[in-house]
Amino acid sequence: MNVEVFNPFITATLDVLQTMAGIDPSRGTPRLKGRDDGSYDVSGVIGLTGQVQGFVTLSFRESAALHVVSSFLGEPVTCVDEQVKDAVGELTNIVAGGAKRALADSGYALTISIPSVVVGPNHSISRPKEIPCFEIPFETDAGPFSVELCLRLAG
Amino acid sequence: MNVEVFNPFITATLDVLQTMAGIDPSRGTPRLKGRDDGSYDVSGVIGLTGQVQGFVTLSFRESAALHVVSSFLGEPVTCVDEQVKDAVGELTNIVAGGAKRALADSGYALTISIPSVVVGPNHSISRPKEIPCFEIPFETDAGPFSVELCLRLAG
Repeated sequence: MNVEVFNPFITATLDVLQTMAGIDPSRGTPRLKGRDDGSYDVSGVIGLTGQVQGFVTLSFRESAALHVVSSFLGEPVTCVDEQVKDAVGELTNIVAGGAKRALADSGYALTISIPSVVVGPNHSISRPKEIPCFEIPFETDAGPFSVELCLRLAG
Repeated sequence: MNVEVFNPFITATLDVLQTMAGIDPSRGTPRLKGRDDGSYDVSGVIGLTGQVQGFVTLSFRESAALHVVSSFLGEPVTCVDEQVKDAVGELTNIVAGGAKRALADSGYALTISIPSVVVGPNHSISRPKEIPCFEIPFETDAGPFSVELCLRLAG
């Protein structure tokens, strides 16, 4: 998997958080995610079809989700309610949409699905074993989140 | 949302369980799922794009997942390990693929994403509020599972 496919997702994440929530997370070192590794507490998931296939997940520790969503909405939120789930889905949608446009400019046509949002402490999101999953860790003032890219190029 | 879009998923689920696992689940009454309603313990999720958009989820209580996967694999499984997650993803993929072909015959073109499998007791999978989600409950000898259809027609 070429890094040029990953970078638009990272760029879009940083752009979206900065412009829509005024947050500049620090970025850690990407790593290949083990199949047993869990995600954080609140995860937005979007499926990708077309020349890039798989899914992208924005997974937040609960504290980080509340921080990011409070900044995104411009009002404090204190628990993971429907409004927070909607906001996490919307943020994931904006990130995937931004990456989709950048990838189209590079010649990769893809379609993104409607977001789903998974909530539950220590949930895990698995994918077919033949598809590698890269995790790009980020850190905010209120805790970590990650962008997970489980992708392959079409046949 | 027309019932002709839902039925292929129900038919495919019954077909797949019967032919691939020898299981004939009883089917309950479909209901509109509330936004706060959780899913069971192991859920295969596939995104749909094209003329039908959203996602389909096969969500199993752990006991039902182990029963169905044991029958599907032809060997007993006793815990939700990687093999079980792969099998739930594969079953979801086969159901979505079957429904996709039936919908194509009815004039609905769609593409299905790679499956993801969510594991975690009482996890919930949310979707955008403008998309209704219908749950079709099924019961096996080893407990319940459901097919969740969160779908809309394009444009």
